Amino acid sequence: MLDLICLDADDTLWHNMRFFAAAEEALLAMLAPFADAGIAREAMAAAELRNLAHYGYGAKSFTLSMIEAALDLGGDALPLSAIREILAAGKTLLAHPVELFDGIEDTLDQLAARARLVLVTKGDLLHQETKLAASGLGSRFAGIEIVSDKTPDTFRRLFARYDARPERCVMAGDSMRSDVLPALAAGAWAVFIPQAGAWAHEAAAPPEDRARFATLDRLADLPAWIDRIA
Amino acid sequence: MLDLICLDADDTLWHNMRFFAAAEEALLAMLAPFADAGIAREAMAAAELRNLAHYGYGAKSFTLSMIEAALDLGGDALPLSAIREILAAGKTLLAHPVELFDGIEDTLDQLAARARLVLVTKGDLLHQETKLAASGLGSRFAGIEIVSDKTPDTFRRLFARYDARPERCVMAGDSMRSDVLPALAAGAWAVFIPQAGAWAHEAAAPPEDRARFATLDRLADLPAWIDRIA
Repeated sequence: MLDLICLDADDTLWHNMRFFAAAEEALLAMLAPFADAGIAREAMAAAELRNLAHYGYGAKSFTLSMIEAALDLGGDALPLSAIREILAAGKTLLAHPVELFDGIEDTLDQLAARARLVLVTKGDLLHQETKLAASGLGSRFAGIEIVSDKTPDTFRRLFARYDARPERCVMAGDSMRSDVLPALAAGAWAVFIPQAGAWAHEAAAPPEDRARFATLDRLADLPAWIDRIA
Repeated sequence: MLDLICLDADDTLWHNMRFFAAAEEALLAMLAPFADAGIAREAMAAAELRNLAHYGYGAKSFTLSMIEAALDLGGDALPLSAIREILAAGKTLLAHPVELFDGIEDTLDQLAARARLVLVTKGDLLHQETKLAASGLGSRFAGIEIVSDKTPDTFRRLFARYDARPERCVMAGDSMRSDVLPALAAGAWAVFIPQAGAWAHEAAAPPEDRARFATLDRLADLPAWIDRIA
């Protein structure tokens, strides 16, 4: 029935946002003398959004945006120690342990029995490779695609590369904006598996046409859903 | 005769080092109150090397290492304006114009008549994609491979992905360390096209076994060299 099961990685296979959130909390604490947490959070979100076109996604971009937000809010009163602490927080972020979601290996085995698995993730090339290696999950995937962004064209090219017909592909992940909508636009099925604490940038209205769309509580529910649509 | 002609991008198809060198010159000027140019250059090289395992290659890593080097040398006397200037220099680096080497389109056409062309480049995913798009050269390549590092395994996997036998592949680029040696180790031919001002990190002793190795002055000499080995 399916040619390809495409899976997001961060916050779909393993925890991710909690580490970015921890780095941001450290930033807010550093900036407490200059701005309350709400203002600081807004300055950080603005820096990230402004820098996306320059830096793209990932922990290095996040680190550079933290520095920019700190300079914006602290002005000339910002202590240099804050810059040092931000660099350290960025390196901690790049080195965080990979904590798999419960039962993920079993779920991947079940999915792999149904179709070829492809990991589709955006972010820093080296960081994503490092996390995948640390996860021990690499051998379960027929392909690893680390991309600069997830657009309909990203999925069209990916399906073509694997000789897969879009209507025989499914993409599952925690981002409505990056996983669900572009996969649907490319003609595939898409499954939304929301996570608490997601980055606001990744939010979007759900699709109007829900024929090939579902929301599931956990990735562990995906094999049974695939059996139902088959 | 050949299955695949693999080409490096930065300083093989287009200018690159001159933009990193300009950013470094700006850094040295900022740090002039704290250290002479030689010391500052060494601090920057040390920061880059120390950070490679964390950050990988590319302009964002370079920016973060510039900040670290400035903090190392300036200590608590470093003005915050230096951090702002480094962030700006990093963004300039990410947005530099793509300046093709002379005659590169004609050379690629000649090479494409001999085998499939694959671009093999390391650095920031988004930055390399952006440069390739700006170059207008993308359609000449059968494949684009943006990798976190160039190791013998990188080339082995790449040749397998394109169903190419290593002894029927050639890799050409300006780095002895990243283009020539790993491609030879993977069983391919390799062509070294040195450029003035190359990063010391990319230097290495030439291979002892030169049966499948050549040094050429310009990429434009590659088609004729391929005809000679055929």
